[in-house]
Amino acid sequence: MLSEFELIRKYFERAPREVRPGDRRARRVALGIGDDAALLRPSAGMELAVSTDLLLEGRHFRAGADARKLGHKALAVNLSDMAAMGAAPRWATLALGLPAADEIWLKGFAGGFFALADRFGVELIGGDTTRAAAPGPVPGPIVICITILGEVPSGLALFRAGARPGDDIWVSGALGGAALALEQPGNAANAKRLDEPEPRIELGERLRGLASAAIDVSDGFAQDLGHILERSGVGATVEYALLPRPAEVGKIADADLQARLVLCGGDDYELVFTSPQANRGELAALAAELNLPLSRVGAIQSAQAKLQVLDAQGKALHIGRGFDHFAP
Amino acid sequence: MLSEFELIRKYFERAPREVRPGDRRARRVALGIGDDAALLRPSAGMELAVSTDLLLEGRHFRAGADARKLGHKALAVNLSDMAAMGAAPRWATLALGLPAADEIWLKGFAGGFFALADRFGVELIGGDTTRAAAPGPVPGPIVICITILGEVPSGLALFRAGARPGDDIWVSGALGGAALALEQPGNAANAKRLDEPEPRIELGERLRGLASAAIDVSDGFAQDLGHILERSGVGATVEYALLPRPAEVGKIADADLQARLVLCGGDDYELVFTSPQANRGELAALAAELNLPLSRVGAIQSAQAKLQVLDAQGKALHIGRGFDHFAP
Repeated sequence: MLSEFELIRKYFERAPREVRPGDRRARRVALGIGDDAALLRPSAGMELAVSTDLLLEGRHFRAGADARKLGHKALAVNLSDMAAMGAAPRWATLALGLPAADEIWLKGFAGGFFALADRFGVELIGGDTTRAAAPGPVPGPIVICITILGEVPSGLALFRAGARPGDDIWVSGALGGAALALEQPGNAANAKRLDEPEPRIELGERLRGLASAAIDVSDGFAQDLGHILERSGVGATVEYALLPRPAEVGKIADADLQARLVLCGGDDYELVFTSPQANRGELAALAAELNLPLSRVGAIQSAQAKLQVLDAQGKALHIGRGFDHFAP
Repeated sequence: MLSEFELIRKYFERAPREVRPGDRRARRVALGIGDDAALLRPSAGMELAVSTDLLLEGRHFRAGADARKLGHKALAVNLSDMAAMGAAPRWATLALGLPAADEIWLKGFAGGFFALADRFGVELIGGDTTRAAAPGPVPGPIVICITILGEVPSGLALFRAGARPGDDIWVSGALGGAALALEQPGNAANAKRLDEPEPRIELGERLRGLASAAIDVSDGFAQDLGHILERSGVGATVEYALLPRPAEVGKIADADLQARLVLCGGDDYELVFTSPQANRGELAALAAELNLPLSRVGAIQSAQAKLQVLDAQGKALHIGRGFDHFAP
């Protein structure tokens, strides 16, 4: 069996040759995995965005989940936080707790993780690998904790607190697909949205100076937009019919189920953002350039923290709560 | 029962008044807990040291461990990594997986965490709290993942790779106390070394420019010094009798047990470092100033990666391996 050190080296300590001479990454890291800490060189004039996510087997993913997809998703949810800040992701640390040093699992996980990391130039700079053990004889759950670090030019980060009455509310991509895949595991059409979400990194960076507030949809549209409203001290009206949804979600006959998926479904990792009306043209051009639908779904109102979702007749729909890890 | 958001607010989102106007911390953080990511302002001319540690119930601490001590230790092991780099700790993220939203536990944990964080000016900038669930009906173990960020002036960080033949080998404090406390849970004399270790932050910062290599003792003196030897491409001779140990360890009649505690006992979080002989006087003065014993225990040799521990007669002792999380 491989030791902890051998494991880390084999799958997570990448050969120096993979950083090409002249590659800007080579200058950004003074020291990576293999010392007491990684040593980074932040760029001048940049602020540093930092976010941590903890994923637990049995809670955030099922036992037996595909390791490669898990490697993708664990990083993707962190990248999504960078997108929501308008930050360019740069570095990540990875802590893994595993019931055993399963090489096949590790190879798959590292494959999914690095395939996504390489697409966005993210460097794995450190981490911790340990054998998980639950209290008692039961093997512990798989534990994945990733911290992501990104850079954003000083003063240009996107916050939750910047929405102003009159701003438009926009959503990228489509809502409810991941929740549908979770609801109907046999339905393959939206499985990729749930298992291998696409973090909206380019969009986040391009929204600097355009969006007044932004958040990513991890807990559901209503709840995540609610965070913007609360932090900004504003309200919102949203037209339900304008909320973008995958074809399979739009076809669901049970209207309550469809509304629940679209409004409260988590895990889509789209961006919800607000922007002054003057930016409509620029945002339409950006959607075309990125080949990513951007839907204008409502408007920010002055009534504090109140979210109204209106049906086609202008009547308010009742919205349940999103996902809360400690809700009774 | 408190919701996830309420929990985070109550125990981990600190009131702005706790950062006093003019406090340098106030200028270092543009945005803390409560957005998609924290936003930091690294100081000019500094490199950023980053390290992550994962602590699992049943593996790194026993079920029922005191929450306050756990809050201290979880941060202390991370601070110790900063000390070993010569970095000043600045910011931390905290991810918690808990079987239930236990307020008494959270209050204790936050108390221990913040008491230590405040001593070193470390700011909690973000995190993630989630209910742990093992596969099946068993409640999941407590999971603690901390990422620490620190600053060190460019070019002055301490690495494992800098030891040169002829350098002295030094150890701070004493070795084997934490392992003794683990071995004899009834023995209170060294419990604090195990449960509430003191990270050697001031020492690490003062070793900039003095130490040629450094590491903290988490897995045991022999193994951790071994990492310096391997990375530096050198060997070492250590005089066993010179290794500092707490009185209770020095009194152990079983010579093999005493040697195992001193050489292979983990969790002491002392610093092991190397330094040119010319610095002996300066290090003695530093020990007096910090009121922290610094013991010169051996010398770096040219023979690659070989560690010889010599007894009073100059004969080599046999050394077992330190702790390896995946060793068979």
